[in-house]
Amino acid sequence: MNLKFDYTHAFFKGQPTKKNLTELTGELQRVQNSMRMMREIDELGFADLPGNEAMAREVAKLAKRYKDFDDVVVLGIGGSALGFIALKDALLHPFHNLLTEGRVAPRFHVLDNIDPELVGGVLNLIDPAKTLVCVITKSGSTAETVGQFLIFHDYFVAKLGGKAEANKRFVFITDPDKGPLRALANEEGIATLPVPANVGGRFSVFCPVGLFPAALAGIKINALLKGAGEALTTGLDAPVLKSPSLVGAALHYLHYQQGRRIAVMMPYANSLFRTADWFRQLWAESLGKANDVAGKPVHIGPTPLAALGATDQHSQVQLFAEGPDDKLYTFLRVEKMRRDLPYPKSPWKQDAFTYFKGRSMRKLLDAEAEATRYALTEAGRPCVTVFMPRLNEETIGRLLMHLELQTAAAGLLFNINAFDQPGVEAGKRYAFGLMGRPGYEKEAARVNKATAKPFVLEG
Amino acid sequence: MNLKFDYTHAFFKGQPTKKNLTELTGELQRVQNSMRMMREIDELGFADLPGNEAMAREVAKLAKRYKDFDDVVVLGIGGSALGFIALKDALLHPFHNLLTEGRVAPRFHVLDNIDPELVGGVLNLIDPAKTLVCVITKSGSTAETVGQFLIFHDYFVAKLGGKAEANKRFVFITDPDKGPLRALANEEGIATLPVPANVGGRFSVFCPVGLFPAALAGIKINALLKGAGEALTTGLDAPVLKSPSLVGAALHYLHYQQGRRIAVMMPYANSLFRTADWFRQLWAESLGKANDVAGKPVHIGPTPLAALGATDQHSQVQLFAEGPDDKLYTFLRVEKMRRDLPYPKSPWKQDAFTYFKGRSMRKLLDAEAEATRYALTEAGRPCVTVFMPRLNEETIGRLLMHLELQTAAAGLLFNINAFDQPGVEAGKRYAFGLMGRPGYEKEAARVNKATAKPFVLEG
Repeated sequence: MNLKFDYTHAFFKGQPTKKNLTELTGELQRVQNSMRMMREIDELGFADLPGNEAMAREVAKLAKRYKDFDDVVVLGIGGSALGFIALKDALLHPFHNLLTEGRVAPRFHVLDNIDPELVGGVLNLIDPAKTLVCVITKSGSTAETVGQFLIFHDYFVAKLGGKAEANKRFVFITDPDKGPLRALANEEGIATLPVPANVGGRFSVFCPVGLFPAALAGIKINALLKGAGEALTTGLDAPVLKSPSLVGAALHYLHYQQGRRIAVMMPYANSLFRTADWFRQLWAESLGKANDVAGKPVHIGPTPLAALGATDQHSQVQLFAEGPDDKLYTFLRVEKMRRDLPYPKSPWKQDAFTYFKGRSMRKLLDAEAEATRYALTEAGRPCVTVFMPRLNEETIGRLLMHLELQTAAAGLLFNINAFDQPGVEAGKRYAFGLMGRPGYEKEAARVNKATAKPFVLEG
Repeated sequence: MNLKFDYTHAFFKGQPTKKNLTELTGELQRVQNSMRMMREIDELGFADLPGNEAMAREVAKLAKRYKDFDDVVVLGIGGSALGFIALKDALLHPFHNLLTEGRVAPRFHVLDNIDPELVGGVLNLIDPAKTLVCVITKSGSTAETVGQFLIFHDYFVAKLGGKAEANKRFVFITDPDKGPLRALANEEGIATLPVPANVGGRFSVFCPVGLFPAALAGIKINALLKGAGEALTTGLDAPVLKSPSLVGAALHYLHYQQGRRIAVMMPYANSLFRTADWFRQLWAESLGKANDVAGKPVHIGPTPLAALGATDQHSQVQLFAEGPDDKLYTFLRVEKMRRDLPYPKSPWKQDAFTYFKGRSMRKLLDAEAEATRYALTEAGRPCVTVFMPRLNEETIGRLLMHLELQTAAAGLLFNINAFDQPGVEAGKRYAFGLMGRPGYEKEAARVNKATAKPFVLEG
């Protein structure tokens, strides 16, 4: 089930032209070769996941153990949460947690923040006896997640009468060898799954980080991996101008050079909105870098923006159509949805009611997607559309792997390291300092020493 | 309960400086005078809402009639939905719809899209006998909303055995005099509330569009309007450099001129994320314009971006700290949350677990907000922080009114019309054409006549 990548409207009278893309062929060849080489020396970890059958079996086996649970709580932030959220929203019923009949999997609560109102809200909803808690942090020391774990474990011990019963309801997904959670799992005999050492958080959806909660949700992880594997073959093996991932990276690169520094992803399906959100992290954290690979300051990086069709036609499209020409648009569309709602014949005669007859909601959504794309093209704004024949495990697997490959390729074009995140370290150290963690006293002192003259208004 | 607007870190060694703000005093005086004058001639409709006691009474009275319903479905898109979503998320329990005990109001389902999977999902959840449907469209002819209405009405008629029973379960919020829904309400005797003629969708949260569903949810609408009224007084009556709304507009204007074309709003509270989303529409649709008030092409407009703290520290902050210096950041913080979760004493000795002792989740969230702000300032990125003493009707009322005033003021600074949205008209016409609505045949022909040579990849 191939996806279709329609780049027809990515070029127009202004720059870049299709010729600019063709001129990049040699460069794309270099990028493709680099990616293949990185793969051979185990530096493109995410590309090995679709073929890792042992991993998929281990995930499926562990998931089976928890099939009678009522609730699953996922503790994890950033890359530890976004992949599963994207899968869940793409593949489960839109009101999964509210279903009483017909819900075939437990309720899911992904706690990807340290908001006490949010986390406390979930503590009140669940029955610890029937709840599984997945704790996901590769390092095993992410402050947000470790703190949540302490609260949940303490609560479960209190409610279930001891550590033995509590421990049975936790699964750690963490580094295979290192880190505090790994040590704790060994000490307490808590079930675990590994995050491969060469797979970073934002590229982790096809490892146990995404797969284990997906398996608990009844998502067919083998089909997901099959789709991902197919995207991988096309992306890395096709001639470069036939590879959607390489061409996608090239177009983003070319448009960025022309001043289009915002990359809008706009799915026309509620179920794909969190896929756009997953992409936000992937794109922003991979490509937003201060220095290039040689250490030269570049302060580069497109800003990803998630929008939702048709909803955001009534929110963002005014800006998209008339504002600055600083964006490249990627629409996601699903050709056959899992459901349609026909419009009934109107009992009233007004024109505003009658033209719906014989049409369906699906048809209106399609008409609006096409009309919006056309209006933007007419206004000279470059657009790309990804068509998914339908939305299922295989096609979402393809889409996510394509976007991972596109990101890795874009990193090579921009000449930056797409796999690190040095810019979040400073904030982490200051937070440790303000929390009073030993060893971070200097950081605390620095933040607390106010330097600027305050300028505060009230009202 | 004043909000605090901390602009200390909006200035730094680069441009703009505090002097640039001071130099804008005369211009801001002109802006403030214009806003007062617009108000006198009824062109600043949203500013009259807080003082409209008759409106608030009418809303409260109608809401009382439906207090025994189990579910409320809101049909509306864009400005007809975003205000209530922001209020609901700010003020109700984070898992309101999932609560079984302690839920004091009906479940709410805001259907702000025409995704058949989403809309069909809600049809399966509700019992029409105990469900109220609010249909919100000012014009009374918004395609998405009218189509949804036809489906729900048809379904209710079928399930309840006739139009009489169905009609009792609908409320229309629409133009007081004109439009197809107003005519239908008169014909069928359906309950209605008016959208004042001089209040546009994105400025409608304090009229029945936002207030009626809020009242159904048990939100104290008088306190909301009181807060809004107080922000209005400060915004329009204070000396310009003491008005947070005018200073906020000025800072966004000055930073935009320096190339910071992205306005990030990053609340550190899950309950305020949809407030940032509401702001996205307000800011994008009001300020993204092709022409200035004299008709001169300008293609202007900051791009609003919603982020969530602490979550997006693990998604966007890498880009914010190291990428291009093209953003102005607004953090929203709540000084006293409605709940806190203390961290327990760790039963384990590792350093990664022990430093939480004696701290709370709230404390960690604060530490991360402060640390992130500090790290961004250190990297030379301009930041503004709005502190809300606590989150309740009065303070959210203040915040939203402040942002509306800031938007109107920014429109005057940018010299564009902040109250129209000409750029969405083309897309609407093309969609009507593709839906086969009589009178739009030319538009359909135009879209269907493919002009560009297709360039489609598969994979």
